[in-house]
Amino acid sequence: MIERFHPEGFPTPPVPLSSATKAGGFVFVSGQVATDRDGKVFLGDFAREVEDTLDNVEACLAAAGARPDQIVKIGAFLSNATLFAPFNEIYRRRFPSAPPARTTVVVAFGHPDVRVEIEAIAYVG
Amino acid sequence: MIERFHPEGFPTPPVPLSSATKAGGFVFVSGQVATDRDGKVFLGDFAREVEDTLDNVEACLAAAGARPDQIVKIGAFLSNATLFAPFNEIYRRRFPSAPPARTTVVVAFGHPDVRVEIEAIAYVG
Amino acid sequence: MIERFHPEGFPTPPVPLSSATKAGGFVFVSGQVATDRDGKVFLGDFAREVEDTLDNVEACLAAAGARPDQIVKIGAFLSNATLFAPFNEIYRRRFPSAPPARTTVVVAFGHPDVRVEIEAIAYVG
Repeated sequence: MIERFHPEGFPTPPVPLSSATKAGGFVFVSGQVATDRDGKVFLGDFAREVEDTLDNVEACLAAAGARPDQIVKIGAFLSNATLFAPFNEIYRRRFPSAPPARTTVVVAFGHPDVRVEIEAIAYVG
Repeated sequence: MIERFHPEGFPTPPVPLSSATKAGGFVFVSGQVATDRDGKVFLGDFAREVEDTLDNVEACLAAAGARPDQIVKIGAFLSNATLFAPFNEIYRRRFPSAPPARTTVVVAFGHPDVRVEIEAIAYVG
Repeated sequence: MIERFHPEGFPTPPVPLSSATKAGGFVFVSGQVATDRDGKVFLGDFAREVEDTLDNVEACLAAAGARPDQIVKIGAFLSNATLFAPFNEIYRRRFPSAPPARTTVVVAFGHPDVRVEIEAIAYVG
């Protein structure tokens, strides 16, 4: 009744969570951050960090059989209010039309180098 | 399969999001803040800011064909712990009985004058 | 169409919310914190605070007829990044296999002594 997914090739999450779950036609994607192949937190260009984070969200969706255009709600978390403008610039390119509903707030993260974390809910019917 | 809504007369969101989405019987409302007619962030009385924010949530719901009593979950974000008491006072008047489930935490926002942001999930069947 | 639940024996929430709501096969549990019998915020050992918080989430689920293994998504909020490691240690024992999707971020709370708050979405079909 509840399915759980982990994208192939993704490092095992260091924390006890499923990358995505599916039930009742909805897919719930855990908060994703940008990591390298070894699962280490990404360090570098913020634009790249946003792209990698969205890539990870899409990989989790794909593992559950969902497409980006099936996302109904995004929860986005940034480490600093100054990041809203560059975040929206990248984000807009990834959702050029018919974007999901979204809430974006500033919080702190478990790792001091993380600047963006993104979770998603998709509807696959 | 997924419908997207923008309340009539609302300023176009300056960020890439749909005000509300509907799928699988649920309506997802993006985090709303209080703004004036031009989309500028509201400045002034906090009680008024809470009322305006809830008005905006209700406008997004209405655009998607949902009523306030169909809200199942509210996510509320405040800029300061001292705002919980006045926030709850207004909020209680808006949901005098059978209130939704709710989570309320303190975060920071993209705009320094925002003191409250509210998102919602409603069920319309 | 929308059902609302309050666990038997729980103190009346000091804020206007339903402990849990159910609609469309999903159960939405309000953000829970650890409290004693009188509804006062728990003070003491962090591991115990996490256990009590998860107990409260489970009590809300049970009131709505849902089991912990039916949770599809957890939202966890911590007051400090240093708490991730001890939080995950307890959490892992509570979800030894097939854990829910999860997002965990650092925020502040309405009460200065709260160190963890947890909300949940479950699917009961």
